[in-house]
Amino acid sequence: MASRSPRLLSLARRAFSSSSSSQANGVSLVQGASRGIGLEFVKQLLEKNDEGHVVATCRNPDASTGLLRLKDRFDDRLQILPLDLTVESSIEASALSIKETYGHLNLLINASGILSIPEVLQPETTLNKLEKSSLMLAYEVNAVGPILVIKHMWPLLKAGGGIGTERSGAVVASLSARVASIGDNRLGGWHSYRSSKTALNQLSKTISLEFARKKDPIICILLHPGTVDTDLSKPFQKNIAKEKLFTKEYSVQKLLHIINNVKNNDNGKFFGWDGQEIPW
Amino acid sequence: MASRSPRLLSLARRAFSSSSSSQANGVSLVQGASRGIGLEFVKQLLEKNDEGHVVATCRNPDASTGLLRLKDRFDDRLQILPLDLTVESSIEASALSIKETYGHLNLLINASGILSIPEVLQPETTLNKLEKSSLMLAYEVNAVGPILVIKHMWPLLKAGGGIGTERSGAVVASLSARVASIGDNRLGGWHSYRSSKTALNQLSKTISLEFARKKDPIICILLHPGTVDTDLSKPFQKNIAKEKLFTKEYSVQKLLHIINNVKNNDNGKFFGWDGQEIPW
Ligand SMILES: NC(=O)c1ccc[n+]([C@@H]2O[C@H](COP(=O)([O-])OP(=O)(O)OC[C@H]3O[C@@H](n4cnc5c(N)ncnc54)[C@H](OP(=O)(O)O)[C@@H]3O)[C@@H](O)[C@H]2O)c1
Ligand SMILES: NC(=O)c1ccc[n+]([C@@H]2O[C@H](COP(=O)([O-])OP(=O)(O)OC[C@H]3O[C@@H](n4cnc5c(N)ncnc54)[C@H](OP(=O)(O)O)[C@@H]3O)[C@@H](O)[C@H]2O)c1
Repeated sequence: MASRSPRLLSLARRAFSSSSSSQANGVSLVQGASRGIGLEFVKQLLEKNDEGHVVATCRNPDASTGLLRLKDRFDDRLQILPLDLTVESSIEASALSIKETYGHLNLLINASGILSIPEVLQPETTLNKLEKSSLMLAYEVNAVGPILVIKHMWPLLKAGGGIGTERSGAVVASLSARVASIGDNRLGGWHSYRSSKTALNQLSKTISLEFARKKDPIICILLHPGTVDTDLSKPFQKNIAKEKLFTKEYSVQKLLHIINNVKNNDNGKFFGWDGQEIPW
Repeated sequence: MASRSPRLLSLARRAFSSSSSSQANGVSLVQGASRGIGLEFVKQLLEKNDEGHVVATCRNPDASTGLLRLKDRFDDRLQILPLDLTVESSIEASALSIKETYGHLNLLINASGILSIPEVLQPETTLNKLEKSSLMLAYEVNAVGPILVIKHMWPLLKAGGGIGTERSGAVVASLSARVASIGDNRLGGWHSYRSSKTALNQLSKTISLEFARKKDPIICILLHPGTVDTDLSKPFQKNIAKEKLFTKEYSVQKLLHIINNVKNNDNGKFFGWDGQEIPW
């Protein structure tokens, strides 16, 4: 087995796909996989199937102890590639590498995101604190980056569709946030993060319409993971009731359930962890 | 009269405000006033009142023949200031100048916007044509710029409120577009423009919540002008039925009607030229 290339393995698996009962075979890409929710997606995708392949991308593979530990356990089914959302050539290089190794993709999860970075980005509590640099950076990472990933992975997703999985198409799931909702915005604040995620929603919806029009076998959805205990939420956890702060394990289990049961007419929609649609 | 400073004039007018029947007295700022809808706002604000003062900002005052012509007609009530949305110091300088001359503002119209710029920005017809530079530029000009204008004019709007007008508060009206609506997005395309305007909607909604919480006398709304015959729509007019292509005169008349009749509980809403709310 180890001497066969992943591409051949993958092709062989596609041939047997209809007889497989596993819900997440095929090739999955988790973008933003170094830690937090992205890392947990990689873990569950590997643990819950014994056939699926996972490509995990992050800015600095050598520094992600979580990914390296998974690599030790799942060497032949996990590939780690460097990808920085702010460097488009790294996205293109990842697409090329996936093309050469597998030839297709069945799932793309955009799990990256920034809310606060010490000395660089602070969630705003008032209009007075709005900085152009923060607005631009959040947009670049939270909206533009994930969409460029979809752009460059598009041919691979088209080639993959639902083949080798029990889904009716390839799935693109981008992690948004409930605070992206304009209709549900009752508190204000967090201007840079909110508006970047709202833009991600609009871009994802716009793209889903093109996939539908071209009859591409791709279903593009947006997900809110709940408030999840990760580095991202850490500075803001003190006012959150304990039962409302999810573990990553729980959140990702819920999100994978949504992904694995997605229907064609879910294309373009925005779901919370509980499967409920969130208003725009 | 001509020897009195605009500030004194303005203060004198505020003292008499309650007895005035004019709907748009006070001091109005039209940002993005060199041409198109912004220029028409300046014209109608000056023509429909014989007391109100208008500050018109644009990137290059000397090049706007439309504004210079209005300056000839309304010398003592029109002030033209240079403001480039991509240069925050020019926004701050305008705020300082308005503060020194009038001390307050009663209306801010963000009328600027970019959709296509030859060789620089093209409305995208497919995901394949998405360019990072276009997404970033549209966001900078259409979302970040107008919000920075609101940020720097905030103290002036708070000082002005509805005083000297028949409105119950100062009004901030930012020109959005129906294509900013995610819920109403049925065609796709125009990714950079759409997502920047969607983000503008979210930012404006977020800001409106702070104004409400702080009980600032400011009502912040978003407006869709219809499809209007200006430079912006010119390249896309061939598929538009003649009766659906509005003149700037008609559109601005409708939008001023909305602005002049706005209620406190319209704060944070998104209206079409016909006064109907547009879904997020
Ligand atoms: N946690 C929550 O409560 C919550 C709630 C709502 C939505 N979300 C969303 O869920 C997603 C995952 O969040 P999380 O809680 O797992 O956050 P996290 O623990 O802070 O992880 C964020 C991930 O994004 C990556 N990233 C940041 N900038 C990047 C860039 N330029 N290029 C590539 N990757 C980059 C980080 O990589 P590095 O290790 O290289 O920094 C990290 O892997 C985000 O989109 C977030 O907005 C989270
Ligand atoms: N026309 C329509 O059918 C339509 C439909 C929906 C929404 N809208 C929105 O309505 C608003 C007005 O559009 P319009 O049709 O009047 O467009 P327009 O005729 O093209 O005028 C655009 C205005 O924006 C200004 N502008 C562009 N970049 C700027 C910058 N960096 N700093 C300051 N000002 C800048 C332009 O100034 P310069 O002269 O210096 O370039 C010009 O005054 C826009 O927000 C547009 O998105 C228009």
